[in-house]
Amino acid sequence: MKFVYSFEEGNKDMKEILGGKGANLAEMTKLGLPVPGGFIVTTEACNTYYQEGKKINDSIVQQILDKIKELEEKTGKGFGNPANPLLVSVRSGARASMPGMMDTILNLGLNDIVAQTFSNRIGNPRFVYDSYRRFIAMFADVVKGYPRSAFENVLTRLKTEKNLRDDTQLTAEDMLNITREFKKIYYDFEKEEFPQDPKVQLIESIKAVFRSWNNERAIIYRRMNDIPSSWGTAVNVQQMVYGNRGMNSGTGVAFTRNPATGENELYGEYLINAQGEDVVAGVRTPKPISTLKEDMPTIYDSFLQIAKSLENHYQDMQDMEFTIEDGKLYILQTRNGKRTASAALKIAVDLVKEGKISKQEALLKVEPKQLDQLLHKNFVQENLKKSEIIAKGLAASPGAACGKIYFTAEDVSNAKKRGEETILVRLETSPEDIQGMQDASGILTVRGGMTSHAAVVARGMGRCCVSGCEEISIQEKEKVLKTKDGKIYKEGDYLSLDGSTGFVYGEKIAMTEPEISGDFEVFMNWADEVRRLKIRANADNERDALQAKKFGAEGIGLCRTEHMFFNEKRIFSFRKMILAENSTQRENALSEILPYQKEDFINLFRAMEGSPVVIRYLDPPLHEFLPHTKEEIAALAESLEIPIEDLKERISSLKEFNPMMGHRGCRLDVTYPEIARMQTRAVIEAAIEVSKQNIRIEPEIMIPLIGELKELQYVKKIVCETADDIIKKSGVSIVYHVGTMIEIPRAALLADEIAKDAEFFSFGTNDLTQLTYGFSRDDAGKFLKDYYDKQIFEFDPFAKIDQAGVGMLMKIAVSKGRLTRSDLHLGICGEHAGEVSSVAFCDAIGLDYVSCSPFRVPASRLAAAQASIKANQSK
Amino acid sequence: MKFVYSFEEGNKDMKEILGGKGANLAEMTKLGLPVPGGFIVTTEACNTYYQEGKKINDSIVQQILDKIKELEEKTGKGFGNPANPLLVSVRSGARASMPGMMDTILNLGLNDIVAQTFSNRIGNPRFVYDSYRRFIAMFADVVKGYPRSAFENVLTRLKTEKNLRDDTQLTAEDMLNITREFKKIYYDFEKEEFPQDPKVQLIESIKAVFRSWNNERAIIYRRMNDIPSSWGTAVNVQQMVYGNRGMNSGTGVAFTRNPATGENELYGEYLINAQGEDVVAGVRTPKPISTLKEDMPTIYDSFLQIAKSLENHYQDMQDMEFTIEDGKLYILQTRNGKRTASAALKIAVDLVKEGKISKQEALLKVEPKQLDQLLHKNFVQENLKKSEIIAKGLAASPGAACGKIYFTAEDVSNAKKRGEETILVRLETSPEDIQGMQDASGILTVRGGMTSHAAVVARGMGRCCVSGCEEISIQEKEKVLKTKDGKIYKEGDYLSLDGSTGFVYGEKIAMTEPEISGDFEVFMNWADEVRRLKIRANADNERDALQAKKFGAEGIGLCRTEHMFFNEKRIFSFRKMILAENSTQRENALSEILPYQKEDFINLFRAMEGSPVVIRYLDPPLHEFLPHTKEEIAALAESLEIPIEDLKERISSLKEFNPMMGHRGCRLDVTYPEIARMQTRAVIEAAIEVSKQNIRIEPEIMIPLIGELKELQYVKKIVCETADDIIKKSGVSIVYHVGTMIEIPRAALLADEIAKDAEFFSFGTNDLTQLTYGFSRDDAGKFLKDYYDKQIFEFDPFAKIDQAGVGMLMKIAVSKGRLTRSDLHLGICGEHAGEVSSVAFCDAIGLDYVSCSPFRVPASRLAAAQASIKANQSK
Repeated sequence: MKFVYSFEEGNKDMKEILGGKGANLAEMTKLGLPVPGGFIVTTEACNTYYQEGKKINDSIVQQILDKIKELEEKTGKGFGNPANPLLVSVRSGARASMPGMMDTILNLGLNDIVAQTFSNRIGNPRFVYDSYRRFIAMFADVVKGYPRSAFENVLTRLKTEKNLRDDTQLTAEDMLNITREFKKIYYDFEKEEFPQDPKVQLIESIKAVFRSWNNERAIIYRRMNDIPSSWGTAVNVQQMVYGNRGMNSGTGVAFTRNPATGENELYGEYLINAQGEDVVAGVRTPKPISTLKEDMPTIYDSFLQIAKSLENHYQDMQDMEFTIEDGKLYILQTRNGKRTASAALKIAVDLVKEGKISKQEALLKVEPKQLDQLLHKNFVQENLKKSEIIAKGLAASPGAACGKIYFTAEDVSNAKKRGEETILVRLETSPEDIQGMQDASGILTVRGGMTSHAAVVARGMGRCCVSGCEEISIQEKEKVLKTKDGKIYKEGDYLSLDGSTGFVYGEKIAMTEPEISGDFEVFMNWADEVRRLKIRANADNERDALQAKKFGAEGIGLCRTEHMFFNEKRIFSFRKMILAENSTQRENALSEILPYQKEDFINLFRAMEGSPVVIRYLDPPLHEFLPHTKEEIAALAESLEIPIEDLKERISSLKEFNPMMGHRGCRLDVTYPEIARMQTRAVIEAAIEVSKQNIRIEPEIMIPLIGELKELQYVKKIVCETADDIIKKSGVSIVYHVGTMIEIPRAALLADEIAKDAEFFSFGTNDLTQLTYGFSRDDAGKFLKDYYDKQIFEFDPFAKIDQAGVGMLMKIAVSKGRLTRSDLHLGICGEHAGEVSSVAFCDAIGLDYVSCSPFRVPASRLAAAQASIKANQSK
Repeated sequence: MKFVYSFEEGNKDMKEILGGKGANLAEMTKLGLPVPGGFIVTTEACNTYYQEGKKINDSIVQQILDKIKELEEKTGKGFGNPANPLLVSVRSGARASMPGMMDTILNLGLNDIVAQTFSNRIGNPRFVYDSYRRFIAMFADVVKGYPRSAFENVLTRLKTEKNLRDDTQLTAEDMLNITREFKKIYYDFEKEEFPQDPKVQLIESIKAVFRSWNNERAIIYRRMNDIPSSWGTAVNVQQMVYGNRGMNSGTGVAFTRNPATGENELYGEYLINAQGEDVVAGVRTPKPISTLKEDMPTIYDSFLQIAKSLENHYQDMQDMEFTIEDGKLYILQTRNGKRTASAALKIAVDLVKEGKISKQEALLKVEPKQLDQLLHKNFVQENLKKSEIIAKGLAASPGAACGKIYFTAEDVSNAKKRGEETILVRLETSPEDIQGMQDASGILTVRGGMTSHAAVVARGMGRCCVSGCEEISIQEKEKVLKTKDGKIYKEGDYLSLDGSTGFVYGEKIAMTEPEISGDFEVFMNWADEVRRLKIRANADNERDALQAKKFGAEGIGLCRTEHMFFNEKRIFSFRKMILAENSTQRENALSEILPYQKEDFINLFRAMEGSPVVIRYLDPPLHEFLPHTKEEIAALAESLEIPIEDLKERISSLKEFNPMMGHRGCRLDVTYPEIARMQTRAVIEAAIEVSKQNIRIEPEIMIPLIGELKELQYVKKIVCETADDIIKKSGVSIVYHVGTMIEIPRAALLADEIAKDAEFFSFGTNDLTQLTYGFSRDDAGKFLKDYYDKQIFEFDPFAKIDQAGVGMLMKIAVSKGRLTRSDLHLGICGEHAGEVSSVAFCDAIGLDYVSCSPFRVPASRLAAAQASIKANQSK
């Protein structure tokens, strides 16, 4: 089996085995561009390495050494040849770009003899020993795991002794001494000399790069970007070229278009007489690429031409690395450039306008989840770079927020009334915090995962949120937040949150308003032209509904009626209902709630102007609605005119061991049919009301948590009897539909039964995922970290549908359900509905719509379009 | 469609539509036995009644009236004919016997004119008006729902006025007056006269019987006996015959064999000059059937002959009701008699010995769950001898019971919830007491014979019962029992009952364990000969393992290793393990636990003498093991030498929102691999240890809560590395197996994946049921009552496998699992493994074994045998 390819043997379509970097180096070689020679050890070699117990077998070693020989012949240099040494870089290169996550070793091939002979020959000992000492430090770090700081300390000490400010001020002799000291440190650490055989250096380095595929940051990055660990990384071995060999040398990075704005202009920066790492490390300030035209006009022209040809060749904006060695230009890398959402849109639309790609190709060039960026405020980027990250949590809900911190929802709401921008800081949020979450600019929680209450509600609101930030601790009573470094932030101090990275900054950072350029609309219209899936939104009130419509939602797929009760005025009636001791008391309380609920529905129906609205009946366990603090309980007891002790007892009797699997959903309607009756009355009376204003609405009544046909029949009977009676008396003709959530495994398995009485299904994939896996999202955060670290799970099944398990249940439900009722209407309203691969899955299994939070609607529209395009391509 | 059948039109195989009572009345009519004429309204008519909104449609009414006409012709009597009236009884009769659960109306056809004319003609006005007033009271109660007490009060008042002790002392004139008063009460209540048209009486009564199918006690009874509500009840309309027409009349109940012991002797009791309800109600104490030989020798002989022929015809012990009217014998009912477990065994074995049935037929005659009775404890004989007998009653249902006395069913049920053993003491029981009878350890009644309600129901339940204990008196209000010697026992005092002798002891008596011998052993051996399924037991310690083996278990299907830690000495080390702050602390704590666990396994393996043992690794959430009270926490903090506050914080950090779906099962091993390592060490070292004593054991290591193949692979790797290392070092050859629970829906769905690394599956149907339905056992109690009441659920899915939903997952897992690994070994270890229909299901889907609690092993052996027989029959 072939495990090693020279650049001449590959091309851009071989990313799977050569990695992205390798495939593009091969492609550029094929195009005749000035690429230093080299070869690629394949991803398959990496996987073999892991399968064989972290060993590179003899056959692969031999293939590598053969390619070294080829390279020696091509370059006329010799590996370990003191007179004319072949020096190489060893770099990782996975199928997908994972910038900076894995390891790199440069200047490989140097040893004591080579360094001495070579430096004499080229007359530049400072350059050679600078390269050698860098190699030793990198090798010790990457291959042997020795901390870099030990080497850096030597440099620092020397500069202090000599009172120097900059490495560049060090002399050739300094570099020679430093090299000696580095070798000594290496020896003390390893109890053996620094390896002198370049072949040993090479094989050890390749192994180290393979290992770095599974270092912690690579694993985290893969999880964040849905890259399977089974892909493995390739390793690129390439002849070194040096941008630091004098004023006729240099190095730089450039994009074919502006990655921030999308403008069609060469964009980038370079340094004269420097190595690539100097540009990245920010030791010296690089110059904008435009000035290269003056510094080296010929080089600039040929680079510009290469850039243009690469963009045309790849039909996308390119991100390139180049080095100029002694007046000769080399291209070290090209890849599709990362870009901001607005740049992505502009580039995609421009490329269509320039006639280079089709609309469908353009649609595939923008990552749906990137569109989120366009819908939120953001930090001024320069200010952000200067700010210190004081903690890191989960990037739970994108956007940026800056404000004074408060530790209770009430304090936030009060501060908002005073006109302050605020951040709500909580151990974890609960439904009672909803007003505060609404009023805050951002939410920071210590506990809870990507799908915790805080995260879900925040995303629904489009509120920036960092959750599960366990690096901080809070003392709620003292209203104080403490970082792991012991920094203290008190109530009223400023913090800034980046919901797209999970970073927390300990200061105020300036913000910019979201910019939605005209390209956005053009682009979304293209998406709407090709998609099959309808997009609805989850919205519980008029404001969210209007927001969703603005973002292109074609209906409401989930209105959570319980959210309508978390208002101070209403919660009291609702609590009275919960604490009722008999159905008369309960009905009285419900009759207080009815007018509110009806009015909410009227507003919702009006906002949607006749577009479909799915109304889910009361779902959460009642205990969630009850007060928890002493004061609140006392206040409630007083207003209910019952003794505190009685109330406490009643509250505690409603507590459940596993509330997620408790008395909730349709189970509430079975126990208290009067709830379903009241909710039906509110829905139908609202529909009648708006029909008088010529808004024709067919409410879709959705019964949650159904697991058994008879359960649905019981509740449906109550709904239909109530509804039909009201409709008959009103004299208005109203059509309504009754359907169910599919969120209990049993309902999916018996969907043919359930479909007898359900006109539609909506997959509640949050609960379905919890029950299919048998873990609750509130608790799973604690142990799932270990699952990711140990590569048992590669992605969060609450963020992305588990197609193998949960997806199998969905497929069963779709096919069985349609067997009973061929026109069964099918949707999904779980968190997954806004995630790209999940939307593609929903498209593939034939759902009619997905329903996501308003701020995810544009992403879902694009994801649905991409799913359609890919489905057609694969036909 | 035919909804009404005359007795001549049916036979015993038509139970589904005629009900048990109706089918047997038809069969007896066909056999030419003296059965009063009549007809049956079918169960289909009952279901139609419910489907059509509780109405009997015209077509069915017409069919009923046609059959009345036929009956008039056959009997020569006329419905409503004053000179020669046709009087009928209207009785329920479901497919399965539901004694006393539904309603009955007697003497229907009487009205003012009929009563007057008829009583004149037969010259017995007392008899006629006694019948009429009974009819009015029954009709008011059953059809109109008016409380019987109102009528009874009239009787009581009159007897007090006239200073009479007994109803029989009332004169004809008294009866006439009582009838008038009853009619007035009826009028006052209903605001209309008592209906005089017999046809109206009949249709209303049939409707009432249909309604009684859904009264509360019928619903409870059905649930307890797995009778679907969809069956409905038939209604039997039959010509009345009277056992109370003088000393030449009588009525009785008899069994062809002794229902308590199984002895082959006519067994029963009768009353001269009485109606059937007098025997059952226990108002007068009946005479044993043997004395009928002297009272009415001819009648006795012909009854004995009928009894024998019925037993031969049905090939089973019969329970018959008869009435003698004016010297003529009528058979009113026959059915397979309820019997105690030991009677059931003896009868089954005897019938085989008598050559009447085959062994396989015998196996089908005993209800597996009845065998539980034989495993009940008995008194320690020496202690029994020393105890004083304070009263003697009828040995109504065998067994021994010792507990605190309570005087209402409700008090018993409450005491049971507190964990008390109880004795229910009642004047006589009524169908409303059914829950209390179920919850009590024993039942003691003052009134009622061997066939009274208490006796029949207690035998059915296998509950120990002493009935008709007239030597004691009770004051129900004061909750006090008094013996004839004047001894007083108050609520909460201890009594002991011997249901085999009828003796009541005034104290607590120690109990002994049961044994399998005699007919039981013979019978169980027959069962073992035919069953395919192996039977294992769930046992966590040597004692349970030995018990299980005694009951015939062929291995241990589930050893819950966490149960080994709930010992005071061990729990401390275990808590230290849980609260460890790093893996070193954890390993130290585990090394304290290791020797205990190893010793436990040694004892278990020794007890099982080489039979298979499945060891499940640590399963429950860790929080369950931590102390909860202030004092316990303080004590633990002291022994751990950490501040109380720190401990509290750690405990609270382990709390979970939904612990059932939390950090438990294999998830613990993923987070803390050292736990799996310690448990493997204990298992393997124990196996090595016993192998030196020549006990060859192949431990089956079972990983709980697996939902994903990689999870299993991760834990299995730890297990195998640890085990193989120990085995290698020991030099002993030990074979072990690694498998998994299937209790997470995802594992069932992806069983083909899981089977790649699992050598066996054991279905954990408790958790699988919780997750498939999405409700937790701990919480479901609160709302499932409503589900039963509203007939959404007909059985408890935790007691009986939900074949439609959970069963579907099991089938998927079996077929997918065997696809990957054809020799995959399959078992079940949930609670369901001891329940008959679930065992049959496990047999049908091809499991290799079921594993239940030790006391359920005999029932499972029989259930497995029955499943095999039925499977072969249906081939």
